[in-house]
Amino acid sequence: MNASRPAVVLLSGGLDSAVVLAICRSEGYTPFALTVDYGQRHHGEIAAARRVAAAVGVERHIVLSVDLTQWGGSALTADIAVPTGRRLADMGQGIPITYVPARNTILLALAMGWAETLGGGDLFIGAHALDYSGYPDCRPEYFAAFEQMARHATKSGVEQTVAWRVHAPLLNLTKTQIVQRGFALGVPFALTSSCYQPLDTGEGQAPLACGICDACILRRAAFTAAGRDDPVVYAPSEH
Amino acid sequence: MNASRPAVVLLSGGLDSAVVLAICRSEGYTPFALTVDYGQRHHGEIAAARRVAAAVGVERHIVLSVDLTQWGGSALTADIAVPTGRRLADMGQGIPITYVPARNTILLALAMGWAETLGGGDLFIGAHALDYSGYPDCRPEYFAAFEQMARHATKSGVEQTVAWRVHAPLLNLTKTQIVQRGFALGVPFALTSSCYQPLDTGEGQAPLACGICDACILRRAAFTAAGRDDPVVYAPSEH
Repeated sequence: MNASRPAVVLLSGGLDSAVVLAICRSEGYTPFALTVDYGQRHHGEIAAARRVAAAVGVERHIVLSVDLTQWGGSALTADIAVPTGRRLADMGQGIPITYVPARNTILLALAMGWAETLGGGDLFIGAHALDYSGYPDCRPEYFAAFEQMARHATKSGVEQTVAWRVHAPLLNLTKTQIVQRGFALGVPFALTSSCYQPLDTGEGQAPLACGICDACILRRAAFTAAGRDDPVVYAPSEH
Repeated sequence: MNASRPAVVLLSGGLDSAVVLAICRSEGYTPFALTVDYGQRHHGEIAAARRVAAAVGVERHIVLSVDLTQWGGSALTADIAVPTGRRLADMGQGIPITYVPARNTILLALAMGWAETLGGGDLFIGAHALDYSGYPDCRPEYFAAFEQMARHATKSGVEQTVAWRVHAPLLNLTKTQIVQRGFALGVPFALTSSCYQPLDTGEGQAPLACGICDACILRRAAFTAAGRDDPVVYAPSEH
């Protein structure tokens, strides 16, 4: 039914958005992948996004740069250290310092612009249950408000030729369930990059994941809980 | 009352946003100017924005690049000719081909990110009555929907420490009234650039306005109606 429907998928290069891209395809949409280089610390994500887009298959992949480090405001875009060595139980309390002001709105607004050009109104984003507890722009109320805004913002919304929808298919899944879903869909996890501070290992080498930032800790715990091996290589522990 | 309140003003380098910046200052806000170079044809606007920001006075001016020509979809971002020689009566009918998909949402989302970093929630944009009739993202319903979305999107909105507001002080003014308002506030109109296709006249020279695109025709008519001289230099007419 959705066979010829274009959809814009926000593809970060991390694990979650790779699974979202696979879900989008499996639902019969024609995926267009948008990666935004906003100056995030984990720059290896951009290269990972290119690998994932090529491996999963997209109609077109655009990498767009927007330098959000100009105003900073987050551990991901300013010179603020990311927390390391935290326990799972300590994450998801309050709004994390890795929150980037207006990030999802900026990403979805760009996706909306491309989708309107393509004649579509379906946007896919990898927000999920854990984000949900901490980031304001990962909650269902937010996505509903964005859809409402999109209806007023666009030519296709005003003329009612397109029904704008933000798809967040991971929203109610745990990280472990996301990993399981990804395996079921054949997601090439080896190509993804989740680490907030990957370690460079020299020219032409894939960077090592640090293993101790929140993103690494969550990822490793999810693969362990799913009873699967994580194909990403981690730096040797210093402990 | 608003003396210490930061506000982010979207400054294009055109006439309208220069007036908005002056209004923002006159209302006691501390203006931070954001100019987005999204690949628009009238690139002279970026240089104009720098001149206007310096002349009117802002706390900080950021010029951000986002290459929306990657997907095009508008006469301003793709290789589509802008209409020329139209009568005023023919403009503002339907959605113009200079409509850039999601443009104001992208601009406001970026402004929202900066404002949240500054601890503010006031965004200023130069949409006005004529836009209003043609562009979906210049209507009051759209701005209200954006504000609602911003309340859900941001840490400050969720924690209710900031009341998000999109100020569009020109919304119900005609172009003539905007010019009059600008003269009353001492706006340096000579520094602004409105033309969609300015003509380069060589290194170090200010480009000439074409005089025949919709933007030039509207601008000239407004100065004439306001009984004022337009300090911008137009290319000699071929007719």
